[in-house]
Amino acid sequence: MRPRAAVFSVGNEVLKGSVVNSNAAFLGRELTAAGFEVIAHAVCTDSEESIRFQLGDLTRRADLIVMCGGLGPTPDDVTREGIAAFFNVPLVFFKDQFARIVKLYRRFGKSVPPLVRREALYPANAKPLVNRFGVALGFAVEQSGKVLVALPGVPAELENMYADVVLPFLKKRFPAAAPSRRLVVRMTGISEPDVMERLGKGLFEDPFDFGIYPSAGEVVLRIYSESPGVHARLKKRIGARLRDFIYSWEERPLGFVIGELLRKKKRTLAVAESCTGGLLAAEIVSQPGSSRFFRGGTIAYHHEIKEKLGVDPALITRHGEVSAAVAGALASSVKDRMKTSYGLGITGIAGPSGGTPKKPVGLVYIGLAGPSGRVNVWQHHFGGDRGQVCRRTVVKALEYLWRAVR
Amino acid sequence: MRPRAAVFSVGNEVLKGSVVNSNAAFLGRELTAAGFEVIAHAVCTDSEESIRFQLGDLTRRADLIVMCGGLGPTPDDVTREGIAAFFNVPLVFFKDQFARIVKLYRRFGKSVPPLVRREALYPANAKPLVNRFGVALGFAVEQSGKVLVALPGVPAELENMYADVVLPFLKKRFPAAAPSRRLVVRMTGISEPDVMERLGKGLFEDPFDFGIYPSAGEVVLRIYSESPGVHARLKKRIGARLRDFIYSWEERPLGFVIGELLRKKKRTLAVAESCTGGLLAAEIVSQPGSSRFFRGGTIAYHHEIKEKLGVDPALITRHGEVSAAVAGALASSVKDRMKTSYGLGITGIAGPSGGTPKKPVGLVYIGLAGPSGRVNVWQHHFGGDRGQVCRRTVVKALEYLWRAVR
Repeated sequence: MRPRAAVFSVGNEVLKGSVVNSNAAFLGRELTAAGFEVIAHAVCTDSEESIRFQLGDLTRRADLIVMCGGLGPTPDDVTREGIAAFFNVPLVFFKDQFARIVKLYRRFGKSVPPLVRREALYPANAKPLVNRFGVALGFAVEQSGKVLVALPGVPAELENMYADVVLPFLKKRFPAAAPSRRLVVRMTGISEPDVMERLGKGLFEDPFDFGIYPSAGEVVLRIYSESPGVHARLKKRIGARLRDFIYSWEERPLGFVIGELLRKKKRTLAVAESCTGGLLAAEIVSQPGSSRFFRGGTIAYHHEIKEKLGVDPALITRHGEVSAAVAGALASSVKDRMKTSYGLGITGIAGPSGGTPKKPVGLVYIGLAGPSGRVNVWQHHFGGDRGQVCRRTVVKALEYLWRAVR
Repeated sequence: MRPRAAVFSVGNEVLKGSVVNSNAAFLGRELTAAGFEVIAHAVCTDSEESIRFQLGDLTRRADLIVMCGGLGPTPDDVTREGIAAFFNVPLVFFKDQFARIVKLYRRFGKSVPPLVRREALYPANAKPLVNRFGVALGFAVEQSGKVLVALPGVPAELENMYADVVLPFLKKRFPAAAPSRRLVVRMTGISEPDVMERLGKGLFEDPFDFGIYPSAGEVVLRIYSESPGVHARLKKRIGARLRDFIYSWEERPLGFVIGELLRKKKRTLAVAESCTGGLLAAEIVSQPGSSRFFRGGTIAYHHEIKEKLGVDPALITRHGEVSAAVAGALASSVKDRMKTSYGLGITGIAGPSGGTPKKPVGLVYIGLAGPSGRVNVWQHHFGGDRGQVCRRTVVKALEYLWRAVR
């Protein structure tokens, strides 16, 4: 019997949909992986009363409640007060935390605004969880067999704090929670229905909890099963049926996997982007350690710039800026200029305007120049809005690079 | 007094975080705009029992409950059963709906799988809401003054059905719900506490619903108020106290606002990025119409590339790659090479590695070259992880550009 967990977010901005509740998804994933059965997500208003009410409900149903949001300095941040009221304890002032805040502000040459003192308060029955990634203080309360953890709502802080202090705390506090075995299968270059087709009905004889999640250019399978036997059998079968599309058996982004490959093989990369305007480079650089294989790139948004980058003006005149010829020229010229093993070149029409009957919005050419000097170019026509076209283009370009490097 | 609404999602995939609950955000936004006070979001497991329990809770607290998910054909879709059990009514078979399904399947030359018959069932006390955008049937229940609407969980179907059948139904059923007035204030270059200091207590005499939302380098105020008078008074006061930081009174990203300014003033822009690796360019290009002012950029990740871009190697040797001198050189050289009015140059250490005692992780230099030929350089030391440092750098660079152009 797995311990039951609830995720509890506080904030009108979440209720009103001003922000999507990505924290709840993150905590749901992590708590499930840590062996908890996540039985509820709840979101309530920025008010002590509704926090108290919701805590009353959730503490009856769950062994662990992880809260997020409402720990900031402003008057609408009342999570501290709500929790203290629920447990009927006062708030206490945490000197070390305030010292940390003062130091942080000093570093930016500022003095601490009076409001910010609130961020050193926590309920008297709580144990502080120091936030090394921001100002807001987290904390944990253990009372009558229930555990409550409160974290700041800034996603980056919440995610970093979870790994840094929350997970270790939960492992100690819930030793019985056996991390449920999760099988992750990350794929690119195949659609959701095609994945289901290849897996076939036979796969689903075993009892397990199966989820398939498509996103631009990628499909992710997540399978939870208690039995190691099932787990191993599934991995074998899925690998056999989808090998050609699987880039990771872990929660690794495609950009990370490619980076590992390039580093292992001592290859380097440069990119020349037009319509995606830096999104491909940003995706690559978002992975730590990218400086070891990524040398740089160019964003050739205007045709004169493309020519500056060594694209023959005649090519542009003859074939147009959005053409296989230009994509190939961008790839090989950036590879030569930056002296790398691989060069990726992208040109296309992201929209909403700029399309023509012969070259409609969504038309994209991806060029890849490799160590042998050989240049491949692929044509695609992606659907969706400007953002989706760019996103799909970036993932597709990474897919071609992955296939070339692995 | 606005009617109170709750958003209720059913599904293990949401609880486990395999999907982000974007439906709740969509419904939160729409219901708020329609004049409802959204008091709660709830997510429960795919089980009749938890649906019944959650409905018991929400019908006590809210006048309207909008449910989504669990209306599909597979055995884990039990929303129909859960609602019928809660109201203690049987499920009835809706002939017209089944006829629709049969027709849909015929179109693809398929016969209806037995499972799919379930999608023609709905609770006897409900009124069907036909889904012109997919197979799953929606429905509405009105009982003892409460209203319950159940919609399919596929975002596109839910969003289309909301506009098509739900909103008209709600307007008839809740004529009193006056769409609430929202005041949006988007700011940059000021912290959340500093915004509160400047607004001062006096501002909060009026009764209104206030939210302040900080994100890397930006602060957004969203204020809902019934009274036009309050609305106008607030706008005047806030404008007077924060003029210097407000870049938009609408939901416009900073990149969009800058684009409008550059286009109006017929100015052009190019960027040279090191540590942010294309993120600044991608942010600018994510706005439609950017091709009218953005000419391109370079990602100078490796020092040799910086030199290729016209940065004097001596500068790099003397001051290092991460220095004010190099940021300025990147800005002016990219401006000259791309013949633009403005050039932005960025160099820094995003981390996690690469820091030194004298040049720690988070140290960033931003250079801006303007039409006059004058070059300004700013030094910053940003906290947070790699992603946060890059994000903050991009927003800060956009802020300097905004101040220069406006």
